[in-house]
Amino acid sequence: MRSAEIGFAVLMAMAAAGAWSQSQWQPLPEIAPAPADNPTTAAKVELGKMLYFDPRLSTTGTVSCFSCHNVMEGGDDHMPTSAGVHGLKGGRNAPTVWNAAFHSVQFWDGREESLEDQAKGPPVNPIEMGMPNLDAVIDRVRRIPGYKAPFEAAFGAGDVVTMDNAAKAIAAYERTLITPGSAYDQYAAGNRTALNAQQVSGLECFAADGCASCHQGPAFNGPPLPMGTGFFVKFPTYPNTPYVAQYKLTEDPGRYNVTKDEADRGVWRVPTLRNLSYTAPYMHNGAVKTLPDAVRVMGATQLDKTLSDDEVAEIVAFLEALTGPFPQQTMPRLPPTPGDLLD
Amino acid sequence: MRSAEIGFAVLMAMAAAGAWSQSQWQPLPEIAPAPADNPTTAAKVELGKMLYFDPRLSTTGTVSCFSCHNVMEGGDDHMPTSAGVHGLKGGRNAPTVWNAAFHSVQFWDGREESLEDQAKGPPVNPIEMGMPNLDAVIDRVRRIPGYKAPFEAAFGAGDVVTMDNAAKAIAAYERTLITPGSAYDQYAAGNRTALNAQQVSGLECFAADGCASCHQGPAFNGPPLPMGTGFFVKFPTYPNTPYVAQYKLTEDPGRYNVTKDEADRGVWRVPTLRNLSYTAPYMHNGAVKTLPDAVRVMGATQLDKTLSDDEVAEIVAFLEALTGPFPQQTMPRLPPTPGDLLD
Repeated sequence: MRSAEIGFAVLMAMAAAGAWSQSQWQPLPEIAPAPADNPTTAAKVELGKMLYFDPRLSTTGTVSCFSCHNVMEGGDDHMPTSAGVHGLKGGRNAPTVWNAAFHSVQFWDGREESLEDQAKGPPVNPIEMGMPNLDAVIDRVRRIPGYKAPFEAAFGAGDVVTMDNAAKAIAAYERTLITPGSAYDQYAAGNRTALNAQQVSGLECFAADGCASCHQGPAFNGPPLPMGTGFFVKFPTYPNTPYVAQYKLTEDPGRYNVTKDEADRGVWRVPTLRNLSYTAPYMHNGAVKTLPDAVRVMGATQLDKTLSDDEVAEIVAFLEALTGPFPQQTMPRLPPTPGDLLD
Repeated sequence: MRSAEIGFAVLMAMAAAGAWSQSQWQPLPEIAPAPADNPTTAAKVELGKMLYFDPRLSTTGTVSCFSCHNVMEGGDDHMPTSAGVHGLKGGRNAPTVWNAAFHSVQFWDGREESLEDQAKGPPVNPIEMGMPNLDAVIDRVRRIPGYKAPFEAAFGAGDVVTMDNAAKAIAAYERTLITPGSAYDQYAAGNRTALNAQQVSGLECFAADGCASCHQGPAFNGPPLPMGTGFFVKFPTYPNTPYVAQYKLTEDPGRYNVTKDEADRGVWRVPTLRNLSYTAPYMHNGAVKTLPDAVRVMGATQLDKTLSDDEVAEIVAFLEALTGPFPQQTMPRLPPTPGDLLD
């Protein structure tokens, strides 16, 4: 996988030079981009929503995508790290599914290049949904007769109940889980009254302090990059702060686990900052409980700055302006279960 | 709690005498009855839906009412017995929440008289949602600031974020979870083409064989009784069938656990037969995997009859005509979580 890590120093230099202009504040697109081989269609979205909510895709029949990526909440699960089958706990904080479509790579360590590939991970992760392999996952789906018709509606007639198509449908649904139209988006689109004075001050701090060096672009997760090209940054960049020990920020080697390259130790994908009001607790390990503390930690670890209480309050006010609106969704209807499905 | 058990012999005699007439086939009401002190309002229903879907009411933050009573499925959880917090398993099959509003008592053993009282059970059941007590449950809700406004919208200003009000709201939501308008309901309302010939034969078998002695009324769960008055029946009534050992039908003493009266050993509330197509596996212990087998078991244990394959197929066809339609629901939006909520 390619990496855009090298650009970080350049971006920091741009920020230091005050190179941020109003034109750099971009609203979120109204439609998420889709790959050429998986255009978003209503039938795929509906099927994907069914699969997303279906706990029968987990070994115990209890855990679905929705369990840890709760779209009735912030697209995550309000816990430091997630709970999978058999009460097992994962090692990282569930990233929000809201606007995941605008990430150019998936997972905290960017180990998958697309939503389609991401969707195949949790079902077979032993501490998430715990299925032995992807064949077993799609076998469950095939054994639920009511899934045949929605797969055919989405993918045509024939042998279409496949894991690839299931992943495509889930990804298509996730591309509808976006939140354009926040107060910030209205501001970025030209409505200068959409943010209050404190939020505008926060926006200015956010740029001047250097936050926007990494958290730039419409989703505040880095510059626009081709899908599959990750934007990664060392965290903490400045490790000489008590926060590192307090919040155990260096225990997880991050992207090193993917590449086994020492240069990737402590390197992470830059996450989106949208909808942070809904996604406490924070950081890859969920160790930081409040948004003001998360801002303080990032100031210290990434910018080598001790932000004042006023600056923190302003930046938090700005970040809160990146919340919602969340699309109103109807509940899917899941087809009936054969009584021996979980045997 | 009063009991209508005594009426069973009379009902059986009525069935034996062929006393069932067309007028006894009643469609499900379009609106569920509500108690005088908890009229159903839109604001209560919306709040109740939020609470119903909120896993933060469980000790681990992982289990909600929805987890075991999945309204995207058959109002249950496609498992023999349910999974609660810490991977613990309950002892009984989750009863469907669909049309629970038409049960005059709640739970398999009828131990609660109302939906309001029922709603207070699972949150503090150690193998379901695992909270230490109801004070802890409502404390969780109080610590989520975004719940204040919907409670006030439902119950007025003041100190309204209470467990009693939470239970009232959940019950109000559950009273919207009803499925009038099935093929059977259309038939019962006078549309003689709503059932096909096999389903009509099944309906006739269902009455003539005696199934309708217990499974009568609009919800097929007994005669209309005042709320709080249970309709209970011994199961198995005829224990000399191999099914009893095969499906371990007598291991759970049922209502005896509530009353400690030997006469209540093996006595159970008569469950609704609506939406059985969606609620496999069957019986209080979820031991019977298919609907045809469930019909055979009931024939043997309750009617002392060995039903023919044709009779079973006809009765199953009739029972399938009791399915849906399920109301289209919008997803609730749950308010943001303080980062220390689950500490």
